[in-house]
Amino acid sequence: MENTHDMREKILGIVVEYNPLHKGHLFHLDQSISKSAASGVIAVMSGNFVQRGEPAIVDKFDRTYMALKSGVNLVLEIPAIYAVQDAGGFACGAIGILERSGVVTDLVFGSESSELEMLDKVADLIVSRKNELNVKEKTYMKKGFSYPNARKYSLKEMICEECGHYAEGFEETISKSNDILGLEYLRWMRIYESGIVSGTVKRVGSNYNDDNFNGEFSSASAIRKMALNGDWDNLIQAVPELTGVCLEKYRSLGGFFTQDDLREFFFVFLLARNRDHLKKYYGITEGMEKRFADAVKSSDGIDDMLESVKSKRVTYSRLKRTLLYMLFEIDGKMIKDSEYFGPQYIRVLGFDRKGRDILSKMRNAAVIPIISTPSSFNQVLRNYRKALKEEIPYFFDERVFRAQLEMDFRMSDFYYHMLAKKHGVKYVSEIKRPPIIIM
Amino acid sequence: MENTHDMREKILGIVVEYNPLHKGHLFHLDQSISKSAASGVIAVMSGNFVQRGEPAIVDKFDRTYMALKSGVNLVLEIPAIYAVQDAGGFACGAIGILERSGVVTDLVFGSESSELEMLDKVADLIVSRKNELNVKEKTYMKKGFSYPNARKYSLKEMICEECGHYAEGFEETISKSNDILGLEYLRWMRIYESGIVSGTVKRVGSNYNDDNFNGEFSSASAIRKMALNGDWDNLIQAVPELTGVCLEKYRSLGGFFTQDDLREFFFVFLLARNRDHLKKYYGITEGMEKRFADAVKSSDGIDDMLESVKSKRVTYSRLKRTLLYMLFEIDGKMIKDSEYFGPQYIRVLGFDRKGRDILSKMRNAAVIPIISTPSSFNQVLRNYRKALKEEIPYFFDERVFRAQLEMDFRMSDFYYHMLAKKHGVKYVSEIKRPPIIIM
Repeated sequence: MENTHDMREKILGIVVEYNPLHKGHLFHLDQSISKSAASGVIAVMSGNFVQRGEPAIVDKFDRTYMALKSGVNLVLEIPAIYAVQDAGGFACGAIGILERSGVVTDLVFGSESSELEMLDKVADLIVSRKNELNVKEKTYMKKGFSYPNARKYSLKEMICEECGHYAEGFEETISKSNDILGLEYLRWMRIYESGIVSGTVKRVGSNYNDDNFNGEFSSASAIRKMALNGDWDNLIQAVPELTGVCLEKYRSLGGFFTQDDLREFFFVFLLARNRDHLKKYYGITEGMEKRFADAVKSSDGIDDMLESVKSKRVTYSRLKRTLLYMLFEIDGKMIKDSEYFGPQYIRVLGFDRKGRDILSKMRNAAVIPIISTPSSFNQVLRNYRKALKEEIPYFFDERVFRAQLEMDFRMSDFYYHMLAKKHGVKYVSEIKRPPIIIM
Repeated sequence: MENTHDMREKILGIVVEYNPLHKGHLFHLDQSISKSAASGVIAVMSGNFVQRGEPAIVDKFDRTYMALKSGVNLVLEIPAIYAVQDAGGFACGAIGILERSGVVTDLVFGSESSELEMLDKVADLIVSRKNELNVKEKTYMKKGFSYPNARKYSLKEMICEECGHYAEGFEETISKSNDILGLEYLRWMRIYESGIVSGTVKRVGSNYNDDNFNGEFSSASAIRKMALNGDWDNLIQAVPELTGVCLEKYRSLGGFFTQDDLREFFFVFLLARNRDHLKKYYGITEGMEKRFADAVKSSDGIDDMLESVKSKRVTYSRLKRTLLYMLFEIDGKMIKDSEYFGPQYIRVLGFDRKGRDILSKMRNAAVIPIISTPSSFNQVLRNYRKALKEEIPYFFDERVFRAQLEMDFRMSDFYYHMLAKKHGVKYVSEIKRPPIIIM
């Protein structure tokens, strides 16, 4: 594979949420293009719900438009079932789309440490000594460590055995959100046996979770906070003009759909549910259903309740994702299938002229169906079967394809319903949305 | 059994919702007491959710208080799983409680026709020729008739064979809501092999579904409508003083919890659900899940949606009950168990001095556990087992007991949470509520 890559046109793949697009993103995009010397860029992007278990501040088509206007040539959607999982599940979807597109030669990701060699080493270790790692993690978790910490300390033990010199600063490196994600990208590239060449760009500006105003280095969290609080003077300085215009459009239409709009819903929902059934949802483990049950009885609202359920071992983001699993009926079986089979189709959200060329290459190279017009997914499926002369690869399953697509449609329609209520307009249903085309 | 009844103290059982108590109810209560010449009255009453698939306009303890102040001696709760079913399921719970109390000798119910002889005949027929009836009903339903109509025409065919002279006016008789319920009481008395003697009082005043103001003969629907619309001048004329005071209390505290408060919740809920899973809930049959799915996509709100789902065969009340089944996760298995085993305990909502005497008699005579203090249900269960020396009757099952009680607690806590939001107070959780005692 490595050899063919050298002769092929270099296409860069990046993984983004652009929630919303900010100046740091633009800087990273430029750096990544230079670094890879690619002639085209594909971004795989979360849809209307993002990894922290929340609705995106602006919808996926507006975010696609911003990406295309900023130098991305083709935007593909990470199916929702992956977009709302932890770093591992998220990476499974994102890398799966890039790899299965058949055209991506390079992946560049932001990294706090930018120590690719070490991250590569750790990824090797995670894949090759998986069972050993699991045992170590479980031991830590039994002692009360959260999953991220259990993984961190287990990996540290193992990396020290192999290359002692990584020990210094290891814990800190492996704790930063971009490095954690990057590590998962590298891990999934190994699992997919991908020939994509990886690189990092050093992350500049604010920390991912720092939500304070920091001028043009403000994080996406900080920008969302400014938009929600109506702090427009600072906001304008922090974001590219494009983003400012888009956020302003939402404001003038009536606002943003946020997790807050579901506060009362979730409380009523949890109050009404049989607590013994909660554990059927993905992510309700470690006695969480018992804590949910107690919290519902003693809380006055959802914040109060989440505060009671939160623990050393369960982060706030994970809790918010868990609420989404309950809301959208995402169970363990569905998550397991998503990991086993990987993404089952490539949904095109938008492209420019260059992106159109990449897309036509992809039509020959991709190993899973490509969906540009969602309403014709049945036709796409038929064509896929026909082209393969019914020799369907082991990683494709029509049942899983339909389940992932149904979830995308449902979650997206839900998003637009909530937005429509705020904006007093009716949004077109997801199945009728064509890609954004900029020529 | 009949002989022992004659020697026992006569205790009257009545089935009520008192949602809210009105002058017609008082008239019926007096008539029923005279008719039965009983020395004490037990009312079995719906809890916080009633048979039309709605929250009760005032809570069960206020309704218990009104009943006790109006001549009822002991109020027992119909477990929620029965209270929110159609006439058949409702009667299974109501008659089950009266029969299993072991002390009720007489049942008097309101009836539009007051033709007890005919109703008895029909009840005999339903029980003895059950399979034949089912076949006929199915034939009618295949032709597009609603279940109530299919049953009506099937019964008419059968009754004409047996006693031709009932044919005249039969359809009309068997279509009125009190007669339909009464028939189900008579049917369940046969199934429970009850020795309770039945009687009717002719229903006076407005039709059950007539929600217009009719002075002191206004129906409960009309009274609820007046209360919700703030039509207090008319309201005061229509209700006993006691009821007026109670409704006024709710108004001054902040209002009533109604189905309307769940409108947006249900819409969001249905929008988020996987439509293929809807059919696991009880009552989603005959392609209703498909109609729900289509309606969700095309509707702007819950009313709009229910209007689309409603059909000749599916009444509005049934749809509202179905929403409750979805909200509270009531599935077919649970309904089936409730019908097979009948009510598993007798929850005491309140009593007066005479009621206390009846209650102490009941402690010896009842064949299922009696729960006065909900928090001690585990103790009650242990005592029940002990008293029976572990010779548990075939109709008692601890799993079903716990499921019915869990549902009562959950639905009631839900009701009080919604009410608390309106009233800006915190209600005590259901498990801590003692009965109302009036001495």
